[in-house]
Amino acid sequence: MSSMGEDEEVSSFFESSPPLKKMEDILEKLNGFIELNSSGEKRRIVCVTSGGTTVPLEQRCVRYIDNFSSGNRGAASTENFVKAGYAVVFLYRSGTCQPYCRSLPDDPFLECFQSLDNTNIQVHSSHVEAVKMAVMDQQAAVAEARLLKLPFTTIYEYLQMLRLIATALKDVGPCSMFYLAAAVSDFYVPWNSMTEHKIESGSGPLDIRLAQVPKMLSILRTTWAPKAFCISFKLETDAKILIDKATKALGKYKVHAVVANELSTRKEEVVVVSSSGNVVVRRDSDKPESIVEDNLIRLIVDRHSTYIKESHS
Amino acid sequence: MSSMGEDEEVSSFFESSPPLKKMEDILEKLNGFIELNSSGEKRRIVCVTSGGTTVPLEQRCVRYIDNFSSGNRGAASTENFVKAGYAVVFLYRSGTCQPYCRSLPDDPFLECFQSLDNTNIQVHSSHVEAVKMAVMDQQAAVAEARLLKLPFTTIYEYLQMLRLIATALKDVGPCSMFYLAAAVSDFYVPWNSMTEHKIESGSGPLDIRLAQVPKMLSILRTTWAPKAFCISFKLETDAKILIDKATKALGKYKVHAVVANELSTRKEEVVVVSSSGNVVVRRDSDKPESIVEDNLIRLIVDRHSTYIKESHS
Repeated sequence: MSSMGEDEEVSSFFESSPPLKKMEDILEKLNGFIELNSSGEKRRIVCVTSGGTTVPLEQRCVRYIDNFSSGNRGAASTENFVKAGYAVVFLYRSGTCQPYCRSLPDDPFLECFQSLDNTNIQVHSSHVEAVKMAVMDQQAAVAEARLLKLPFTTIYEYLQMLRLIATALKDVGPCSMFYLAAAVSDFYVPWNSMTEHKIESGSGPLDIRLAQVPKMLSILRTTWAPKAFCISFKLETDAKILIDKATKALGKYKVHAVVANELSTRKEEVVVVSSSGNVVVRRDSDKPESIVEDNLIRLIVDRHSTYIKESHS
Repeated sequence: MSSMGEDEEVSSFFESSPPLKKMEDILEKLNGFIELNSSGEKRRIVCVTSGGTTVPLEQRCVRYIDNFSSGNRGAASTENFVKAGYAVVFLYRSGTCQPYCRSLPDDPFLECFQSLDNTNIQVHSSHVEAVKMAVMDQQAAVAEARLLKLPFTTIYEYLQMLRLIATALKDVGPCSMFYLAAAVSDFYVPWNSMTEHKIESGSGPLDIRLAQVPKMLSILRTTWAPKAFCISFKLETDAKILIDKATKALGKYKVHAVVANELSTRKEEVVVVSSSGNVVVRRDSDKPESIVEDNLIRLIVDRHSTYIKESHS
């Protein structure tokens, strides 16, 4: 693999991936959504990626490597983008946090309801407002064509769908944005070298060799959607190396900004690293309801506005 | 590790595990539940395990290996055990299928509701019955102390909780059962040898060495709950080796039966392997609502009745 060029590694990844199921269906939804939003008032369109990708260890998958991500950042950012007037393609890992659902309990379906008289159910009074907001705001966003939700599970699905979206957004040009908050696997088992059946246990330790997932960011920037505004994320558990790694990613992939988060403090602050310097963005700690994403999306939207103006001048 | 005895491997696993959070709280719930069910009419108590365990690859976990399991079998079996008069301790992976929720859509919270008049929401008429059943049946089971739900995520949490439950059920003797439907990792990274921080990418392929998780079934049978009736599961993707592996597991762990499932046909049939021979259990294919678990639990409950009688004679 090391002798391959970057483009070749990317082609080889896609050629060996199991084909995306329901591709026609996804494309139809996607093109319809983009058309609705780019005709008439011409909204800006952002693709928000959210949640972690999985890497199967067997073709008939029993075991897989997962990348931890609750999807909270992606969901909260989506709400803020919709509020700022954007149309959002929400590319999310099945089962992770959904927009407008952040204030619900962990298992909202069974925890939000009570039986009234043994023949009917109602929402617990303590959750009435949160439940109404979750259902109504999400339905309004979908009905107004502000929100298209597309789920994925594996790294293969994620990267194929990201390519579809990027290609479909090409004509939207500088008014499109990629906000890549998903936790994408760095390592994977190439499909062709993967065992078909469940790996057997019982004969000592198991050694797994994982290949590096080719970096798709360069291709996204140079080929798939070169005019789109592009924000990537860098998560580390070690604060000491975080800014350095984010700065290197900025230089390497030529994205417009890298949002640096440290695992333990990510809900309190992030650092937006860009060519115009590093900006620390915090939640408003004096307001209990405030979240980092309220301030982060305001900053990103401003930067996007500047980018659109510069692209047109 | 290979020179260690089985007991030693088990002790070493627990000693190196990160301690279980909220242990006091779990124990209090558990003991209260067992007391309520063993006083008075003395119900049989079954611990149903469900969903897959995760194996962290880093102490500050960003990546982990997961074992695929929707939790459907455990949830459906729990409903059938409650119907058969059992009290169920449902030890389940967070986020997997819950009892009474099988007929709901994938994302029930947002898919079951519609807004009525822009100020109120109601359940879609197509889902009214399923939603009512899910909420009311689950609440009734919990209210009657027939169902105690305890969530886990990692293999460390799962095995520590299983030990707690087995120990707490000791006095229930032959009237207790373990129905071990969870997909438990065979391999793990010992906590002490695990890297603290996120594994860095960028320097070629990644090699991971995984140790075998010590088999706790023997210890469960011989030490933790020797009088309990014990059913384990064997899942394979290769039908050719399935029955052989299930038969070997029966001999090795001295459980009362092994339920053999093949990944692709597991919703149509299973084989119950025991010392009295192999029994194929199928769903009633002429009834569309029928599931394998309806017939499987009937068989298991019969076997448990025989076991209780023989234990008392």
